[in-house]
Amino acid sequence: MPGRKIIKAKNFFEEDFIESLAEVPVEKIESWGADTKLNIVGKPIPRVDGYDKVSGTAKYTFDIKLPHLTYAKILHSPLPHAKIKSIDTRQAKKAPGVLYILTHENCPPIKWWRVTFLFDPHVRNEGDEVACVVATSEKCAEDALKLIKVEYEALPFVIDPEKAMQTDAPRLYDAGNILGGGPSKYARGDVEKGFAEADFIVEDTISTQVEVHNPTEPFCSVVNWDGDQLTVWDSTQTIFGVRSSVAGALEIPESHVRVIKKYMGGGFGSKLEGGKYTVIAAIISREIGRPVKIYFNRKQMNLNAGNRPDSVQKLKAGAKKDGTLTALSHYSHAAVGAHPSGGGCSWPLRAIYKCPNVKVEEYSVMINAGRARPFRAPGHVQGTVGLESIMDELAEKAGLDPLEFRLKNYAEVDPVSNQPYTTKRLREAYLRGSAAIGWNERQNPAGSQPGPVKIGIGMATQIWWGGGGPPAYVTMKMSGDGSVEVLCGTQDIGTGTYTFMAQIAAEVLEIPMEKVTPILGDTAACPYGPTSGGSMTAPSVAPAVRDAAEQMKAKLISGAAALLEVPETELQYKNGVITSIKDAKKTIKIDNIVRRMRLGTLVTTGAREANPVGYQINSFGTQFAKVAVDTETGKVTVLKIVAAHDIGRVLNKMTLENQFHGGIIQGLGFALMEERVIDPNTGLVLTKNLHDYKVPLLLDTPEIEVIIVSDHDPLISNMGVKGIGEPAMIPTPAAITNAVYNAIGVRIKSLPITPDKVLMALQG
Amino acid sequence: MPGRKIIKAKNFFEEDFIESLAEVPVEKIESWGADTKLNIVGKPIPRVDGYDKVSGTAKYTFDIKLPHLTYAKILHSPLPHAKIKSIDTRQAKKAPGVLYILTHENCPPIKWWRVTFLFDPHVRNEGDEVACVVATSEKCAEDALKLIKVEYEALPFVIDPEKAMQTDAPRLYDAGNILGGGPSKYARGDVEKGFAEADFIVEDTISTQVEVHNPTEPFCSVVNWDGDQLTVWDSTQTIFGVRSSVAGALEIPESHVRVIKKYMGGGFGSKLEGGKYTVIAAIISREIGRPVKIYFNRKQMNLNAGNRPDSVQKLKAGAKKDGTLTALSHYSHAAVGAHPSGGGCSWPLRAIYKCPNVKVEEYSVMINAGRARPFRAPGHVQGTVGLESIMDELAEKAGLDPLEFRLKNYAEVDPVSNQPYTTKRLREAYLRGSAAIGWNERQNPAGSQPGPVKIGIGMATQIWWGGGGPPAYVTMKMSGDGSVEVLCGTQDIGTGTYTFMAQIAAEVLEIPMEKVTPILGDTAACPYGPTSGGSMTAPSVAPAVRDAAEQMKAKLISGAAALLEVPETELQYKNGVITSIKDAKKTIKIDNIVRRMRLGTLVTTGAREANPVGYQINSFGTQFAKVAVDTETGKVTVLKIVAAHDIGRVLNKMTLENQFHGGIIQGLGFALMEERVIDPNTGLVLTKNLHDYKVPLLLDTPEIEVIIVSDHDPLISNMGVKGIGEPAMIPTPAAITNAVYNAIGVRIKSLPITPDKVLMALQG
Repeated sequence: MPGRKIIKAKNFFEEDFIESLAEVPVEKIESWGADTKLNIVGKPIPRVDGYDKVSGTAKYTFDIKLPHLTYAKILHSPLPHAKIKSIDTRQAKKAPGVLYILTHENCPPIKWWRVTFLFDPHVRNEGDEVACVVATSEKCAEDALKLIKVEYEALPFVIDPEKAMQTDAPRLYDAGNILGGGPSKYARGDVEKGFAEADFIVEDTISTQVEVHNPTEPFCSVVNWDGDQLTVWDSTQTIFGVRSSVAGALEIPESHVRVIKKYMGGGFGSKLEGGKYTVIAAIISREIGRPVKIYFNRKQMNLNAGNRPDSVQKLKAGAKKDGTLTALSHYSHAAVGAHPSGGGCSWPLRAIYKCPNVKVEEYSVMINAGRARPFRAPGHVQGTVGLESIMDELAEKAGLDPLEFRLKNYAEVDPVSNQPYTTKRLREAYLRGSAAIGWNERQNPAGSQPGPVKIGIGMATQIWWGGGGPPAYVTMKMSGDGSVEVLCGTQDIGTGTYTFMAQIAAEVLEIPMEKVTPILGDTAACPYGPTSGGSMTAPSVAPAVRDAAEQMKAKLISGAAALLEVPETELQYKNGVITSIKDAKKTIKIDNIVRRMRLGTLVTTGAREANPVGYQINSFGTQFAKVAVDTETGKVTVLKIVAAHDIGRVLNKMTLENQFHGGIIQGLGFALMEERVIDPNTGLVLTKNLHDYKVPLLLDTPEIEVIIVSDHDPLISNMGVKGIGEPAMIPTPAAITNAVYNAIGVRIKSLPITPDKVLMALQG
Repeated sequence: MPGRKIIKAKNFFEEDFIESLAEVPVEKIESWGADTKLNIVGKPIPRVDGYDKVSGTAKYTFDIKLPHLTYAKILHSPLPHAKIKSIDTRQAKKAPGVLYILTHENCPPIKWWRVTFLFDPHVRNEGDEVACVVATSEKCAEDALKLIKVEYEALPFVIDPEKAMQTDAPRLYDAGNILGGGPSKYARGDVEKGFAEADFIVEDTISTQVEVHNPTEPFCSVVNWDGDQLTVWDSTQTIFGVRSSVAGALEIPESHVRVIKKYMGGGFGSKLEGGKYTVIAAIISREIGRPVKIYFNRKQMNLNAGNRPDSVQKLKAGAKKDGTLTALSHYSHAAVGAHPSGGGCSWPLRAIYKCPNVKVEEYSVMINAGRARPFRAPGHVQGTVGLESIMDELAEKAGLDPLEFRLKNYAEVDPVSNQPYTTKRLREAYLRGSAAIGWNERQNPAGSQPGPVKIGIGMATQIWWGGGGPPAYVTMKMSGDGSVEVLCGTQDIGTGTYTFMAQIAAEVLEIPMEKVTPILGDTAACPYGPTSGGSMTAPSVAPAVRDAAEQMKAKLISGAAALLEVPETELQYKNGVITSIKDAKKTIKIDNIVRRMRLGTLVTTGAREANPVGYQINSFGTQFAKVAVDTETGKVTVLKIVAAHDIGRVLNKMTLENQFHGGIIQGLGFALMEERVIDPNTGLVLTKNLHDYKVPLLLDTPEIEVIIVSDHDPLISNMGVKGIGEPAMIPTPAAITNAVYNAIGVRIKSLPITPDKVLMALQG
């Protein structure tokens, strides 16, 4: 295997490093420089799937219809914590149209999260799966659910993480409620010494709420067995992840499972793994010999789709008179629900600023509520609110402008690894962003503007990982008419993957974009592609597309050389035509090459390059928020967000701006309104629908200005592109929080910043 | 492009050579030797799709159901030759459920065969397409067909090829009725001199009938537009051929068309190109915005599915006293129908026997009848009947045993190219086959057995091309559980391609076959694979599978070396486990390698090797028939066929024997019963259904003994396999013909050998 070497690859969701072997293409292709004239890449090109989506012909998982399709509905636990004493499905089984009922009594003992099972008689949160009915219609299935009689033994529950951490709290698991048995810790330098050296110290507690996943498209699977081969259509960010989860649960070879996802209405981290619902549908489908459709309604989404865990962050920061940070400490706990992933949020604090002494201690605490799971920049959104609040507080105490204070502590190398960055253009982002928002017009002191409606300006900084993460392979096939198919087993979750793949192939091969058909989201058809998460799709897939296209170009030139009998070095490739430099009559179109080579189609396989060793790859950005706070009603209106970011190369100006709009609006929702509320007396969720659980609407949308300060990152890949999925959202809530402070002169320390909190803060 | 070179590739259906570039794998893998112990390849393993097929869960094109599916029915010309004066679809359009009607008046002017159009107002045979109705149900579409009023101007027609060759005959095309304007000619040596040197000369005219394609599964397409992307499910031997034909007709990029074929009920050459029906369905589907299903009934199949053209062969052969052939001449004409491919049948005569002087002249003549197209060994089946009849006649005249006579003229090198064969084991086939049938018990002289039922034994020889033909690529993907998907854009048309692909992958990787999932028949999912025709699927695809699997093994060993920190040369691969030779504790399973390498899936792409240059690659065989002829009824019963063949390596003893059974039964049908009959007065086909057009039934099936004299061909590929699709059928009719002569002592010179012909021959 020439050209391969061992590199380090990151597992972004564990914030951990795992040694890995990755394939490195034999020849590294240089990144297009800032001066390379590109005709398609970078341009504001409407998405190639735009027509399908606006015309309604786009097929989402929900739209899959199969002969003899049946419908599954799940009975969920109505209690936050209980044991199932008995389930009586006899009457339900006799109901019209019912084909099958699965419960823990007749389900194979399939292990799920840790010690739990697919159907577990010990339910640990409202919404845990108790039974599944499959019937010939949705109505029949829903009616039958009501006929299932379940006797529960209610158990004591706990929903407050501080209580859950106590030793006498009700336990969700025998091993206790603290995930991993104790805190996650990090330290560098000597934090006590650092605080001793400080001239100014601030301490504060900042808390953020639980934000629930509510993608436009709810969870949905359609499953079909064909002999011993299972096809799963699923709304997922990870077709290969679903495949391995389903195959593992059913104990069948992965090659017997095909997972397909063509279009998707968002994931944001909620669809990063296979769901129980898919496995349940597959089991029943195999029993009844008919395809099964299963999907979540909004109530189920609000209970079970997962969430960004809350955070209680006790922060302490110290600086010298000149503004130099001397120490940062961070203690936090997060209520991560009943079947969670971790809730750490300290990475921004560890990585954004140059600070020699840092100490972190974080607890992820299980409670009897819906599970935490990755949510657009897991940990970073809430961690940035904490960090950037305390930075503003410290700047004020030191009498420094918040922007100057940040520039003072600008990290020239990564403070965690001490490695250099591949590129870092945060300074330019600060300068251009602050100019665009009118930083100098901010109130000084905060809250000093007269009148009931006060305008405020705030800012925050963002860091995220920027290199390609998971492996990505692209197969390119050129047909006899010069049109190409570009296959990658990744997903377009709404972000524009289809479009940039077509752009890059068309750019390299100098052919019209309509001659390029990207094919994604099919484990059988496509080579392995990455999970769509962690802002890693573009940095992982784009280089593989270019690699495959450059190889294709080389093959075409080689073919032309043979057919024209001209040395390759004397050939020129232009607009899909290859011509002898010395004799212009010797010329051939690429489609003629493919046809005359009689190879069927011309095939190449591209791969993403390994990340460079010895460098830290990050995206950086800053956002500035301008808000208006009505001190009589407490209502906060976001007037404008300026987003200035270093994200490497822009692949498509239009889809890039779309992505920023989405991230900023989602950040606004987190700052001002979204919140899961649980009744402490019953342990039941009070915000199970989109009336009670508020998400931002069109009228909440501020003016948004996107400034990209980077052109490309020459070190990271042949495309020099970093991702933008999470960076777009990370700093928004923190910037809004700081802007509100600047408007009213009082800091709201608990998100979301709802009118009642603003009024209470103003009152005292 | 290292490792590539220009080679010659054959276009088997044109019996022509075209210069081509083909990819040659960089490292040639040696063929497994005769002494290599194989555990899976070669064994009699039931086909992997057996369960699906016998249980009825296998989805054929006809089984594809889509939401809002509509149904197309075609109105065919009721006359053999006419011009459409007018079409009135007004009433039909108003009929219940009718959605669209396409005729030559509203169809885009899409060119089809030569000067003809998709819908052509000049119809040239009974069955030509006149209109297509698409409706919400089949019944509605059929009812509406009857409401279309067509006024025809009947034109003079011609169905007799001898008449059609005359200058004053009715012309199908302005350019005349002889395809290509004149005969196809071939000559070597000096045939007049050869006949002058002969001691014995025989001359005779042998004719064969038109045999109609009647695969179990009739033609069928289901088409669906998704935006500007077209998906076509089609019963086809060539998904890539259909794709290019449909894209070309619609003038859209090939990458916008996806053709899928999972299971198929036979093709035999009738499905080697895209059909008009598919394009018609796609046009209407685009107009109405709904998917369309179209399929042929048996009547349509008998009129339009194509056929093996008839032949009238005037043969002359000369030999010396010792049996040495001195000259062969062959004049023939074939009635190839209205939109045909060629009808030459002389290849066996040119290539089987050593004969210095050969002359051939062949006419393909167009008539007002259904088209000729490739049919299991195009030309060879009828040509072998002619050649082997005249060989038997000459042997008898020279007083030689027919087998001795053939051995006397055994070609040690290819008589056409003078190149050596890669392997030729025909001599062994003659000897073992003759022993198995009991050659010495044949009647001598012919027809000398007393009593009304006379037993006869006859033989015939077969030659066919044996190397890989078209390009073939195989993508192999190994998942984290060690299971693999093997993708190739070829088809399993019922011959066992799925099964041998799984066998080869399992053999190389030493894993159970159930961990291998072959994926075929999808232009989007699969790399380019060959048309399933010309007995070339196995020789083309099998080497690519082995290549991909060997590369996979190498990647696994390389990964194990890195993970175990042991040099590759010190590792041993056994049953999917890699172990250090020096330290058995250092061991790792292949699934662990894939998981720990964190490459998603491990991917390799294999390709078939180029055929060796300077060699002739052929399969060879001989069949011996034992028949009983009832001289009172004229009925011929085939008692036994011994098939002794050199076909290189056997991939699967069970599917190989299946293939021979099918070929021999089809050959028996050609010899004794199948025949298209046209009424000379009306030009209309009298045998439009399977009652009037007789095909062999289970009770006609003889005892069949298959003897394979080859183990492998070390020169042709890493698998050493030749194809068996056509070889299985080629010699059967000739062997039966000669056996009937041996039984009754009178030669039937016109196939099929029906009872009336036998009785007439015996009487006169």
